[in-house]
Amino acid sequence: MTELKNDRFLRALNKEPVDYTPVWMMRQAGRYLPEYRATREKAGSFMDLCMNADLACEVTLQPLERYPLDAAILFSDILTIPDAMGLGLSFEAGEGPKFSNPVRTEADVKKLFVPDPEGELQYVMNAVRTIRRELNGRVPLIGFSGSPWTLATYMVEGGGTKDYAKVKGMMFDRPDLMHKLLETTAKSVASYLNAQIAAGAQAVQIFDTWGGALTPRDYKEFSLRYMQQIVDQLTRTSEGRKVPVILFTKGGGAWLEDMAATGCDALGLDWTVDIGQARARVGDKVALQGNMDPSILYASSERIREEVSSILASYGKGSGHVFNLGHGIHQFVNPEHAGAFIEAVHELSRPYHQ
Amino acid sequence: MTELKNDRFLRALNKEPVDYTPVWMMRQAGRYLPEYRATREKAGSFMDLCMNADLACEVTLQPLERYPLDAAILFSDILTIPDAMGLGLSFEAGEGPKFSNPVRTEADVKKLFVPDPEGELQYVMNAVRTIRRELNGRVPLIGFSGSPWTLATYMVEGGGTKDYAKVKGMMFDRPDLMHKLLETTAKSVASYLNAQIAAGAQAVQIFDTWGGALTPRDYKEFSLRYMQQIVDQLTRTSEGRKVPVILFTKGGGAWLEDMAATGCDALGLDWTVDIGQARARVGDKVALQGNMDPSILYASSERIREEVSSILASYGKGSGHVFNLGHGIHQFVNPEHAGAFIEAVHELSRPYHQ
Repeated sequence: MTELKNDRFLRALNKEPVDYTPVWMMRQAGRYLPEYRATREKAGSFMDLCMNADLACEVTLQPLERYPLDAAILFSDILTIPDAMGLGLSFEAGEGPKFSNPVRTEADVKKLFVPDPEGELQYVMNAVRTIRRELNGRVPLIGFSGSPWTLATYMVEGGGTKDYAKVKGMMFDRPDLMHKLLETTAKSVASYLNAQIAAGAQAVQIFDTWGGALTPRDYKEFSLRYMQQIVDQLTRTSEGRKVPVILFTKGGGAWLEDMAATGCDALGLDWTVDIGQARARVGDKVALQGNMDPSILYASSERIREEVSSILASYGKGSGHVFNLGHGIHQFVNPEHAGAFIEAVHELSRPYHQ
Repeated sequence: MTELKNDRFLRALNKEPVDYTPVWMMRQAGRYLPEYRATREKAGSFMDLCMNADLACEVTLQPLERYPLDAAILFSDILTIPDAMGLGLSFEAGEGPKFSNPVRTEADVKKLFVPDPEGELQYVMNAVRTIRRELNGRVPLIGFSGSPWTLATYMVEGGGTKDYAKVKGMMFDRPDLMHKLLETTAKSVASYLNAQIAAGAQAVQIFDTWGGALTPRDYKEFSLRYMQQIVDQLTRTSEGRKVPVILFTKGGGAWLEDMAATGCDALGLDWTVDIGQARARVGDKVALQGNMDPSILYASSERIREEVSSILASYGKGSGHVFNLGHGIHQFVNPEHAGAFIEAVHELSRPYHQ
């Protein structure tokens, strides 16, 4: 495989020295970019775009053409695994994801299986291979998956939810069923991420979007426990280099110590925690990724620079920080503001690495 | 005024001994109750219901007829203040609140004024007076308001929001304007709550529903600061008795120490914090209210009892705990489950008060 031209992202995740703080943005290939919207229109449905390796590669690379980003992230959806399990994923315009066969009963849970990453999910691996080839060593490629708990919420609810009525109903009344569901899902995620790594992903991130909706006890039992199982099963070296694992629980600021104890390499932080305090809490155990409020990208370049500067100062000197937003970039952000953000990170972070 | 027959709620907020832990539920007068839905239909629009003192009183008392609750809470909306400022509140079916005149420009902010609680907002005070009369000392009546920041999000966005684009846009780019808006709103909330107290409210709660969407720095500058101003301005004694003030920031678990330092009497907790840990953090400074995940009410009575028991054990012995849900009761909960919850709190808490 081609030598990496820019490995700041991987070095920062391993707390090795860098000349400036690397940066990427969650959902950097997305609707805020006119070129993305053009490709998306060409592709047909959102899943058509995910399933076409060339087009998935095209949108993955678009933000890298515009901005000096330090990592690419596979363009895909977090719900590919349940779709491959036969739940029938579709996206209705403005409605978010829907499953035609949600998981509600014991029989539904029994039908779940670990999809073959080079079978039902081969389209994802093809995208990874295509992107790696086209990246040609420019920056590392991040693979990803939803966390078991986050996937479970969609699988049981049959789509997005505000109140988690069905998924928490199952969790509280039939914890045995929920654990069975999560076990199969965790195995699926581990196999899926290992296949992404085999196909060329150089780091992986687990998105636990809904872990923050749980009590501390339920978070440990129904979310963190299964992320731990995944971390334990992951291939941690590939192409002679460490493959870092990043855990991101949105709203999980209270549980950073527990997350760090899983043996992952880095924690993603949302903007509700102070990154300096987070660093003090986890010590040298893990690197930190984050954590600018994505809404700041609505503000002026000056205000964006000020916020970048304040986060850099809070993290302080030394490696171990990957700059990012605390959640995905919003669709109505002006792409020039994203550019100002990335430039500010690179420029203002140099003194912290001297 | 009539002597209070059940003052456990006020005693617990003051950390005075009680025989069992008092309990009420946020949104206890609400859509999960068939009798509420019947009155709501009779009333016309949601605001018609809020503006009719007799009907507002009727729905306030409905949950007390069903359950042995230890407090009543004024039935009203958090958006009465901006409506009284001329923003034109309406509720479209299934759409949530809308303002026809949102606050977007400097001119819009300049037009804001402190509404007269016995003028534009007299319908709220009439409801308070009617409810107090009809309660006849059964349990204390809680008055409430949205926090300035929470009101500001609706005022600037013109309704609910997922990404806070406009309100954070103003906050980041025109902090001067945002502060002016918040200052007028804080004065309005203080005057509104003091009028509720004068009309008969025996405790007040400030709902900071959206404070948890802010960074720690922004929370202090744009939300907590204005709640502090309100706490400083509130009437703290009425009818010869202390009027406790409860602050509730949803998603504010990281900032309990700062909230307690405002001089309020109690903190409302959502379910993402462990109440025992919260108690250890705030010490004797404030009482705590909360914090069961409202979704547990979808589960069986046995599971509900188990959760109540675990929260009681976590809080531990002694007064200073008002049991509640960590957020409003959901509309699709079976009313019998709410009954099981309330019964469990009363029954299982006795040993902690011996």
